[in-house]
Amino acid sequence: MKLSQSFTKTTKTAPADEASRSAKYLLRAGYIYKEMAGVYDYLPLGMRTLEKIIQIIREEMNAIGSEELRLTALQPKDVWEATDRWSDDVMDVWFKTKLNAGGELGLAPTHEEPLTHVMKSYISSYKDLPVYAYQFQTKFRNELRAKSGIMRTREFMMKDLYSFSKNREEHDVFYEKCADSYKKIFNRLGIGNDTFRTFASGGAFSKYSDEFQTLCEVGEDIIYLDREKGIAVNEEVYNDEVLADLGLDKSKLEQCKAAEVGNIFTLGYRFSDALDLCYNDEDGKRQKVFMGSYGIGPSRVMGVIAEKLSDDKGLIWPEEIAPYKYYIVGIGEKGEEMAAKLHDMAPEDIILDDRKNARTGEKFADAELMGIPYRVVISDKTLADNKVELKNRKTDETKLLTLDEFTSKLA
Amino acid sequence: MKLSQSFTKTTKTAPADEASRSAKYLLRAGYIYKEMAGVYDYLPLGMRTLEKIIQIIREEMNAIGSEELRLTALQPKDVWEATDRWSDDVMDVWFKTKLNAGGELGLAPTHEEPLTHVMKSYISSYKDLPVYAYQFQTKFRNELRAKSGIMRTREFMMKDLYSFSKNREEHDVFYEKCADSYKKIFNRLGIGNDTFRTFASGGAFSKYSDEFQTLCEVGEDIIYLDREKGIAVNEEVYNDEVLADLGLDKSKLEQCKAAEVGNIFTLGYRFSDALDLCYNDEDGKRQKVFMGSYGIGPSRVMGVIAEKLSDDKGLIWPEEIAPYKYYIVGIGEKGEEMAAKLHDMAPEDIILDDRKNARTGEKFADAELMGIPYRVVISDKTLADNKVELKNRKTDETKLLTLDEFTSKLA
Repeated sequence: MKLSQSFTKTTKTAPADEASRSAKYLLRAGYIYKEMAGVYDYLPLGMRTLEKIIQIIREEMNAIGSEELRLTALQPKDVWEATDRWSDDVMDVWFKTKLNAGGELGLAPTHEEPLTHVMKSYISSYKDLPVYAYQFQTKFRNELRAKSGIMRTREFMMKDLYSFSKNREEHDVFYEKCADSYKKIFNRLGIGNDTFRTFASGGAFSKYSDEFQTLCEVGEDIIYLDREKGIAVNEEVYNDEVLADLGLDKSKLEQCKAAEVGNIFTLGYRFSDALDLCYNDEDGKRQKVFMGSYGIGPSRVMGVIAEKLSDDKGLIWPEEIAPYKYYIVGIGEKGEEMAAKLHDMAPEDIILDDRKNARTGEKFADAELMGIPYRVVISDKTLADNKVELKNRKTDETKLLTLDEFTSKLA
Repeated sequence: MKLSQSFTKTTKTAPADEASRSAKYLLRAGYIYKEMAGVYDYLPLGMRTLEKIIQIIREEMNAIGSEELRLTALQPKDVWEATDRWSDDVMDVWFKTKLNAGGELGLAPTHEEPLTHVMKSYISSYKDLPVYAYQFQTKFRNELRAKSGIMRTREFMMKDLYSFSKNREEHDVFYEKCADSYKKIFNRLGIGNDTFRTFASGGAFSKYSDEFQTLCEVGEDIIYLDREKGIAVNEEVYNDEVLADLGLDKSKLEQCKAAEVGNIFTLGYRFSDALDLCYNDEDGKRQKVFMGSYGIGPSRVMGVIAEKLSDDKGLIWPEEIAPYKYYIVGIGEKGEEMAAKLHDMAPEDIILDDRKNARTGEKFADAELMGIPYRVVISDKTLADNKVELKNRKTDETKLLTLDEFTSKLA
């Protein structure tokens, strides 16, 4: 991508009402644009990072045998009345609207009801089970307070997977498989070392639910972490009984602030019961389907990563989700020529800062603010040795590579 | 994909209230699910075709130098009041909703206002222009009547591109470039031969707008087509004066029913004026930005293609947008074994019909209903000659290929 041809620009200041560092940097670097509190557009750089996060999650969801679909935001009230979640008193984050043709609709804050309803058309026998289906879909939640930039918003991208199993045993196997898959995802996203499976409150069908919590100073949760075992307990269930149940030693636990980046719930018969989703077992007996739900918010994860991995100069993206891997600055006529040549070899990997009206110092500062993993400088001096200078955004380490060494790294 | 592991099933009947053939087939084949009138979920097969359509459009939009972003559905009223489009009397397809924190919001039926507003942060000089930005985004339109399955719905996927130019001359060049790009897109989508650039009513800044109309019996428009010249006139501007203006001979025009699959508008200063989007020209003089909009609805296009290219047995997808290219049926033990082996070589290309409880005739009928371009049969008989039988869904042509010939076709 040539910076001279991209419409966004970096800015020195962010809106005064943005408190979180991630939001300030994402706004200043041109990744997002604030429509209003809790509602953000994704500009070209932001779209690329968001899509890369989505693609990683998609690959791992496909790898555990689940199928992608897309449900609608607009929801009729009948299925939600059947589960008693239509009322604003029960579900306080609904956006409701009216159909010109008559009737009230809601904007789905989650999708247990509609997907359970879809499955009534496709599940009738034990032979049809299990079913694992997921989507990347825009959720709407009428939060009273939006917070922390893209970490808690009113319109956001969500990956939600739902499992439909014959019984609890079948459910439990998939539940653990998905938990393992989540670990892989957070590793690939570059926050694996600081993300912990965390026991949180369960429901009628399970003592606990599982959250994936990333250590983060602006996180909304308090967790108690056993680093050695790599598991944690959410403050909401932190008591002696639970610690004993989980075999955790209070003296070994650290109290930490954390941001929830994923969660897994055992839904049991909560929705299949209310919506009558049943199957005939091998003996021809009618049984209820046992369900689970598995969420990750790609836009929220993007906010958490931006928050956690940034420094006082700007964002620092892990390579797998950076919008581009290299930020190339050519200095001098020959340097600029070679920079353009390298860019054209791999425009999907490279931001070419070919702006005429920006000084080299400004270009370097923008490379840092945008958080591109490697800054590449090509000048008459480096070219004299047939080399380019590579600087690692994260470690600040600088090294010289020959042009051949560098081009062999390009996709 | 193994059919035994996919949750959807084909059905013999469609909902009684679906009038259009495309909707019936898409529902029966398990591509879509009807939430309510005008609101459809995309099931795994439907998602794949929709995403392939999106990818083709994306590639062509990138090729003409435009940048992808994503704006929000939730909209505050102020920018729409500034252009006088907030009122339901002016824009009658709004879905409106209320924010719990106070205030009214709308669900964007289109995005001229918010993107013009975004550009106020990024456009200030002639050096910043032109800008071409597009998105794939879910639009909400509170249509009084939903029609023709996924061809006219209340929630749908839209590609909308907006251009921001220094002046009309710069605008006109891009306008034609985008029109050429649309032709490429409809060619790649397999409806190029029956899709015509059609003159339709313009606005304050242009005598005409351009529609791309696909000949289609259930289309909502009437066009007058000059096949030789490859252009048409929409009924709404069909009169002697317009024909003379366009140099068209009335006697050579065919009256046809058609469905609009794309459109291009010259917006001129309509939005830059109302929202004060200006730039300083080379002489330091303040000028208004000249705008255009360019739409294609991928879900609508999918409906039109499903309608147009189907026959009495079901859907017929062009290869580039079929969810899978081959539908493999193994007959007999060795045939089934080889079918599974071929599937594993290219699971993204192949549907393996490995259902135990379906007869061969049912499998063949489902292959046709789903519209997969090639049915591949492998039996003891074909294997005796080391061959597979390939049947073309569109032409019904059958031929035998050696296993090597077939595997060399796989991705």
